[in-house]
Amino acid sequence: MIYDTAIIGTGAAGLSAALNLKIHNKSFLWFGSADLSDKINKAEKIMNYPGLPSVTGKQLGDAFKKQIEDMNIEINERTVLSVMPMGKRYGIMAGREFYEAKTVILATGVNSVSTVKGESEFLGRGVSYCATCDGNLYKGKTIAVICHSNRFEHEVNFLASLAEKVYLFPYYKNPSVSSDRVEIISAKAESIKGENRVEKIILGNGEEINVDGVFCLRNSISLSSLFSGLETENGHIKTNRDMSTNLKGVFAAGDCTGRPYQYTKAVGEGNTAAHSVIEYLAKKDE
Amino acid sequence: MIYDTAIIGTGAAGLSAALNLKIHNKSFLWFGSADLSDKINKAEKIMNYPGLPSVTGKQLGDAFKKQIEDMNIEINERTVLSVMPMGKRYGIMAGREFYEAKTVILATGVNSVSTVKGESEFLGRGVSYCATCDGNLYKGKTIAVICHSNRFEHEVNFLASLAEKVYLFPYYKNPSVSSDRVEIISAKAESIKGENRVEKIILGNGEEINVDGVFCLRNSISLSSLFSGLETENGHIKTNRDMSTNLKGVFAAGDCTGRPYQYTKAVGEGNTAAHSVIEYLAKKDE
Repeated sequence: MIYDTAIIGTGAAGLSAALNLKIHNKSFLWFGSADLSDKINKAEKIMNYPGLPSVTGKQLGDAFKKQIEDMNIEINERTVLSVMPMGKRYGIMAGREFYEAKTVILATGVNSVSTVKGESEFLGRGVSYCATCDGNLYKGKTIAVICHSNRFEHEVNFLASLAEKVYLFPYYKNPSVSSDRVEIISAKAESIKGENRVEKIILGNGEEINVDGVFCLRNSISLSSLFSGLETENGHIKTNRDMSTNLKGVFAAGDCTGRPYQYTKAVGEGNTAAHSVIEYLAKKDE
Repeated sequence: MIYDTAIIGTGAAGLSAALNLKIHNKSFLWFGSADLSDKINKAEKIMNYPGLPSVTGKQLGDAFKKQIEDMNIEINERTVLSVMPMGKRYGIMAGREFYEAKTVILATGVNSVSTVKGESEFLGRGVSYCATCDGNLYKGKTIAVICHSNRFEHEVNFLASLAEKVYLFPYYKNPSVSSDRVEIISAKAESIKGENRVEKIILGNGEEINVDGVFCLRNSISLSSLFSGLETENGHIKTNRDMSTNLKGVFAAGDCTGRPYQYTKAVGEGNTAAHSVIEYLAKKDE
């Protein structure tokens, strides 16, 4: 099946796009956490969301979830690893699955999480974003796992069932991984080094750990690794007024397109992006 | 007093801008109907407003009004007649009052109401948008009043207290004007004609009525009469990604900037416009 569109990101912008595509009976994939954006859920008080006076992030998130449920919209929790242009459509690798869509809406947010130095340099040469995909390559080996949320702990456990030794860098509170092959490191991972491929990870305190591979587990991966050829400006995806990007059939919405980083702005852009997709598909079918 | 900004229009875009300017402690004027946009109140069911699943227009409008009230935001109901650049600020004629603001946010919506042929041609030569301003010019004379909402009936009554004869074209249901100088015409006003200034009004049925002047009373006046020098494209205000227009310090948001005509898109653009104004003011003050 070739989907009409694939939305990447379950923040406010992705949600807004999804609502509109659903109403317009478009077939679409929606990738991201079913728990929606961390940023929404953690917001203390939102004063400027029109129609919901002084709502908490939790309330707004719950309202969003209810709306998704009421409209029978599904979220695909597989992590999107890459998007590739394939002639007139796009191929999407998510987890171990491969999907095809005529258009893509990027609603990936801004990654306030800093990436590790060397991460993109060694991608595919020891650095991986996907435990399920690449775990088997590290059977009996030593790896580091930089993990940004406890919702990826099952992947850490999976990796620990294969590797001989796992150095876990938990970037969240109260990690609970049971395997005795896992050693929790409280220092930050500063950089990844090696000759041709990953050889060691350098800690913030200057120490070094020799590893065969590094897994970075987080909700979103850096845009530059996700998508090549996408034009950016000051770290944001460059968009036109209709939310189109420099790539045909690729649209973007929300924080990833630039400031202000606001829910209201994000839902607005998600709406516009969805309508631009609908228009694009209509023209394509002519 | 010179205000930080003047928002023109009380639809979803204007509201969203107002909320943000209020939170940022900016001084601003907000022009439009306190009953907000007709379009909002009349919408039957809105399925795609994130956070408010399947809300009616009435419910959304009420939520907006509550938010305005809770935040002590005031609406100025005077009709904006023109906006003039004055060096580094803008002068705004609204009713008979004159205001000054450093910036302007246009959130005027799209006028689905068709204007009358000849209206802009004879503006200032018999055509007026402001009963209070120009009523005195028609003492003892014969005028036509094209009235788009019963909320302007007090202006019709005011005009009837001056003119000898008023032909009223009510473009709404159940007009109730008491003066016996007012004759209600059920035909549509087709065009305004004259040599140098207004002489007669031509009806849809071909009949003609001789008049000395024509008052057009509606929530918004056409952008071209409101603001000269503003760049438009296909009837919409041309904006950049930050909602700035070709005029320095002038921003736009909502339906007036183009499709999709959607509440969600409008609130998003209002948010962005407000933040651009805040940034613009900060730079200006440096």
